[in-house]
Amino acid sequence: MPADTPWTPTRPTRSSPKGERRRAEIIAAAFTHFSAHGYRGASMVQIAAACGVSRAGLLHHFPTKESLLAAVLEERDRVNGDLFFRDTDPKRDGIDYLRHLLQVLVHNEGQRELVRLFATLSTEASEPDHPAYAYIANRFRWLAHDIDEAMREAQSRGLVRPAADLDGFGRDLIALIDGLQIQWLVDPTGIDIAGRTHRRLMEVLIADPMM
Amino acid sequence: MPADTPWTPTRPTRSSPKGERRRAEIIAAAFTHFSAHGYRGASMVQIAAACGVSRAGLLHHFPTKESLLAAVLEERDRVNGDLFFRDTDPKRDGIDYLRHLLQVLVHNEGQRELVRLFATLSTEASEPDHPAYAYIANRFRWLAHDIDEAMREAQSRGLVRPAADLDGFGRDLIALIDGLQIQWLVDPTGIDIAGRTHRRLMEVLIADPMM
Repeated sequence: MPADTPWTPTRPTRSSPKGERRRAEIIAAAFTHFSAHGYRGASMVQIAAACGVSRAGLLHHFPTKESLLAAVLEERDRVNGDLFFRDTDPKRDGIDYLRHLLQVLVHNEGQRELVRLFATLSTEASEPDHPAYAYIANRFRWLAHDIDEAMREAQSRGLVRPAADLDGFGRDLIALIDGLQIQWLVDPTGIDIAGRTHRRLMEVLIADPMM
Repeated sequence: MPADTPWTPTRPTRSSPKGERRRAEIIAAAFTHFSAHGYRGASMVQIAAACGVSRAGLLHHFPTKESLLAAVLEERDRVNGDLFFRDTDPKRDGIDYLRHLLQVLVHNEGQRELVRLFATLSTEASEPDHPAYAYIANRFRWLAHDIDEAMREAQSRGLVRPAADLDGFGRDLIALIDGLQIQWLVDPTGIDIAGRTHRRLMEVLIADPMM
């Protein structure tokens, strides 16, 4: 995520380290609840209880359930960034970046509720007046941008098949992954998200990110 | 859809032509409401009012909102089947079937709420205890099956590139389409669903379904 996300203006002002810590605790509890019960199934009252704050205390930090969800997603992006993308840069080594992307997909197969949350939100937030609209729209943009940069870097080193046309590749690859994740949610043993994505990449690449 | 869908057992018994007509009116009103307000935003009370039945009358035909949604989706499949797939058969002419599929995608670009409804439901219904679970799971299966049959028929006539590996192609193509539709909902002018799907097909096919 870019540092200055569309969420920033809606965040309550935080002036104390204690407020920051409390905010982090709420986000952690909310992630657990959203993951266990889904976004709609989770309750603000239960989330407040889980981290020992009153409902008013919770609303001070997050005036709406949507704003709390936004913070959870931001935090997940940050964690994923640290876990998988800290040591890689699509502009520096495209194949290495794609390896990290495939590792995220493998990792996500153990994160059913997280995958479900992103799938639900991507559709739910498709109206411009939804609080997560800008987040979701931005997410598609920077993911596609990074994938396209990775492909161009690989191409510059002769690691892309000469016949491949990379125009729009990033958007299409995200679409394939999102669509596979939806089918995987319905049929977890029948769909190999990382395997199918890897296969798609190998129709275009000469170097195998998994080797 | 196979004739015997998983919804059949949950349908209320219908014994009179009048009951059938009333049921059809409710389904039509429900589609309008689901399309205008989304599944969650639509209200059973408003749907009942729109077709002049009492709430009890509505519940006689459709005991839950989910069962009404299921009937709406079934009806849409039937209408789409009549509109686009009546005169085509993937086993008889695969290229012609794919042409019809692309025409559905073009048509859907004028049906934002329908696309949104399918996208929402595909994720929402991914838990086996959801009333639309079997519908969604079946839908992925028969769509993939038809696409795979179309590709095999085209291949049998030498219309598929020799290097193409068709294993799992149907599932991947559905994933691409579903993922593109999600991005299109967020960015309707930036994403050309039919164009990108056509392009993907032309990486594999020798004959162009749109020529």
